[in-house]
This record gives sequence, C-alpha cells and structure tokens, in this order.
Amino acid sequence: MKWKLTVAYDGAPYSGWQSQADGNAVQDHLERAVAAVEGKRAVVHGSGRTDAGVHALGQVAHFETTRTNLSARQWLRALNAHLPPTIRVLACVRAPASFHARFGAVGKMYRYRIYAGEVLPPLELGRCWPVHKPLDFETMKEAAQLFVGRHDFAAFAANRGKVNEDTVRTIERIAVSRKGPLIELTFTGEGFLYKMVRMLAGAIVKTAAGQEDISALRARLKNGTPKWNHVAPAEGLFLVRVRYARRATSPAD
Amino acid sequence: MKWKLTVAYDGAPYSGWQSQADGNAVQDHLERAVAAVEGKRAVVHGSGRTDAGVHALGQVAHFETTRTNLSARQWLRALNAHLPPTIRVLACVRAPASFHARFGAVGKMYRYRIYAGEVLPPLELGRCWPVHKPLDFETMKEAAQLFVGRHDFAAFAANRGKVNEDTVRTIERIAVSRKGPLIELTFTGEGFLYKMVRMLAGAIVKTAAGQEDISALRARLKNGTPKWNHVAPAEGLFLVRVRYARRATSPAD
Repeated sequence: MKWKLTVAYDGAPYSGWQSQADGNAVQDHLERAVAAVEGKRAVVHGSGRTDAGVHALGQVAHFETTRTNLSARQWLRALNAHLPPTIRVLACVRAPASFHARFGAVGKMYRYRIYAGEVLPPLELGRCWPVHKPLDFETMKEAAQLFVGRHDFAAFAANRGKVNEDTVRTIERIAVSRKGPLIELTFTGEGFLYKMVRMLAGAIVKTAAGQEDISALRARLKNGTPKWNHVAPAEGLFLVRVRYARRATSPAD
Repeated sequence: MKWKLTVAYDGAPYSGWQSQADGNAVQDHLERAVAAVEGKRAVVHGSGRTDAGVHALGQVAHFETTRTNLSARQWLRALNAHLPPTIRVLACVRAPASFHARFGAVGKMYRYRIYAGEVLPPLELGRCWPVHKPLDFETMKEAAQLFVGRHDFAAFAANRGKVNEDTVRTIERIAVSRKGPLIELTFTGEGFLYKMVRMLAGAIVKTAAGQEDISALRARLKNGTPKWNHVAPAEGLFLVRVRYARRATSPAD
C-alpha cells in the first residue's frame, strides 16, 4: 500500500531534507515517525532534496506500508503525533503503485523572499534574505526574464560531483512581486539543478543592486561559464509545491 | 533630548514588555541598549505592557538622553546593533519634551490570529491560536460586534490587584477577516485593560465554536460578571500600532 504525503517544514532546525548521519534531516524525522506507526522502518522518498535551512510549504513524499488497517486520515494524525511541530504532514492520500514522489514529479514551484529595507522586522527573521542595498525593481524583472525558457544552466548550478550531468532545464515563469520592502521571486519549472534557484536569486538581486550587468549575465548563461558564485541564503527559499501528471497520483488508475 | 521609538519584537523569547528580575523583558533589552550607547542608564517608557509571548509590530516607547551628538538615524542603528535580532527599532524620531509614550497614547490596534484548520503549518507555529473545532464565521462576526462601542469591560479583564479600577473602555472597531483557515480579529480602541483582548478573542472564538451563546455573552458584558475565564493564548496576539494626537509627537511644538 502506497501513501503520498504533502509535507511542510520550517527549515531552520533541520539538516535539510535528505537523511543525514546526525539523524536530524526532515527525511529522518519522517522515517522515524513511519517506523513508530508501522512497527518497522520504511524509506520515505521525497520529490527532491532541500538544503539545510530551506523551508517547504508543500514538499511531496511517498512511502510503502504493509499495514492496511489505517485510513489516510489515521496515518496523517499518527504521523503528526510522532513529528516535531516544525514538520507537519498537511495531507495524506493513497497513491497508485506506480507513483513515485521523485521520478513522477513533472514540475516544481519555488519562492525566494527578499527583504529590501533597512531594518528586518523580527517576524521575518529566518524567512527572507535581508538586502540593504537599494534594488531597482525594473532591472530585477528584466534579469529574471533572462532565465525564463529552455537554457543550459551550467553556470547557475553547484556541481554535486556528477560527471556529464544534463544541465538543460526549462523555467516556465519567474514572477516578481513586491509589497513594500518585501520582494518575492516565484520560480515555476520542470525541475531545478542543485542550488540553482538560490544562484538565480543571487544573480537577479546582484543585478538589481547594480553589481552585475544584464549583458554579462546573458553571456554567462549562454557560455555556461564562469560559474556564478553568489548563492543567496537558504533561509529565503521555500519549496511551494510539486506537480505530478494527473495519472500518476490517482489511485483509481 | 527625547526620542520616540517604534519597536517590533517576536514575543516568544521574552518575558513580556515590562522589566523583570530575569532581565529578559523587552524593556530590559532596550534599556541595556540605550545604556550601551549613552554610557549611563535611562528608563525606556513603553506605551503599555505586553505579556510574555505577545508580539509587537509597532510598540511605541520613549527615552531621554543627555547625549546630543547622535542623529535619529545614528540612534536607530546604534540601538539595533546592541539588540538581539528578534527585537528591532523600526523608527526613531525626535519627540517634544511633552511627549510620553504611555500617557500620550490615544489609541491602540491589536490583532489576534486564529488558525482554524486541522493541521497547523509549521511557519504559523507561535504566531496564532490553533483551534481544531469548526468555527461559524457569521457567529464570530456577531459576537465581535457585541463588544464594539463604550462598555464596562469588568467581566473581560484580569484583575491586576487595582482597587476601583475604571473598567469602562471604548472599542471603535473589531474587524473580522478570513483567508482560508486563518482568521484575524483586529481590535481598534482607545485602550485595553489587562488581558482584555485575549479574553475577548477567547469569548468570540468559544461563541463561534458553539460553546457559549450570544445572549449569555451579552448578559455577562452588561452585568460585569461572572468573569470570563478563557484567555486566548499569548502567541496569537500582536500589538499592531499605537496612536498619538498629532500635537503630541511633533518636535516643532
């Protein structure tokens, strides 16, 4: 029996999504919760990693169980009872045997939050990147637009040691919005490379601050080099949601 | 020389506004910051207390200094440099000698946030009251409306040991808004008694949950007894702003 989970977490207390030796990754907490309910260990597969400090509003994961006497609602409650309050299962549904949180994901939405004011309000602490330089909003939109479409993002991805990794990705949209000093960049795409959203956010902000120019950014994207080296802080990044093909998630299939 | 400060804080780490023996009240932190800049202690007067755990978006305070070589902007930066990041001075302006943060306040706005959904999202933790019972939104608006106007709020205030305290107050408005499971009650009034906003929020929510009825609530308000005993949790309450008469804050006076 396979279950699909929608999971939200505050990234601050955790060592990222992926299981770590310290046992303090979000995946570790979820696997311990499943084990506590199930009576034995099961792997909880996520749609992809999030780094330490990155938040999730709608991470997706799945796991398989042999226990058949619990409903989706009972699983949701039981898992939350075993999880710290900074990790919550928001939804739990039966998934078809073919569902896979990682391989079935066809799109993701990430949001990067920037606070461009002199004094960071305490309740925004750990939830945005405080930028103290004036940012030109029109330049920001122009820089964001550069990255929309199908590109080789080799210059905007950290190398995770993979050889010949395919670094071509399609970004469908980068929405740039502003409410007072709070700026949000919302990235929608088929998938993103390691640290790619934070590198793009870094590039967009540095350009809006006049520390990089659009044409240099365009050349870097086109040439795939030199590697962009300003990764925006983890705490400003939120995994908003993960998209699947309708067929993939319907247990009726 | 007198300075008016607008101060925001996350209430969670602190023992409320008012100076405590543990030295961990927001006032203590501000007084230590002023002392560090000024070289000697000064009292920082707030517009009023907030309890432990209550947040502020725009608390107002004042202090006097003999140091005349710092501009408002320099004070703001110097104070923030000596404060923890969960307490921030958002604004600092010169105030006339007659200004007093507490005695000059002519109105306050408080917001009480309620999360009426099954699972509390991790990023809302400590910033709202999670209520798991279904709430009737129309009843909530009706209950809120009861308290608008000039009333004796004796039944909805904690007794702080003051004898013959005047418990008559005017509430100008209680705005009730909803966005999905998040409900906000925004109270605007001339001033509020000790724990009054949290007692009113408790009464409004219990009525919307069907655990109290409107007529009993009306009788309790009218009679001033029995004392309402369900104080809503501190973590859902935010002091939004404090209002002063224009004359009171203009240094040109």
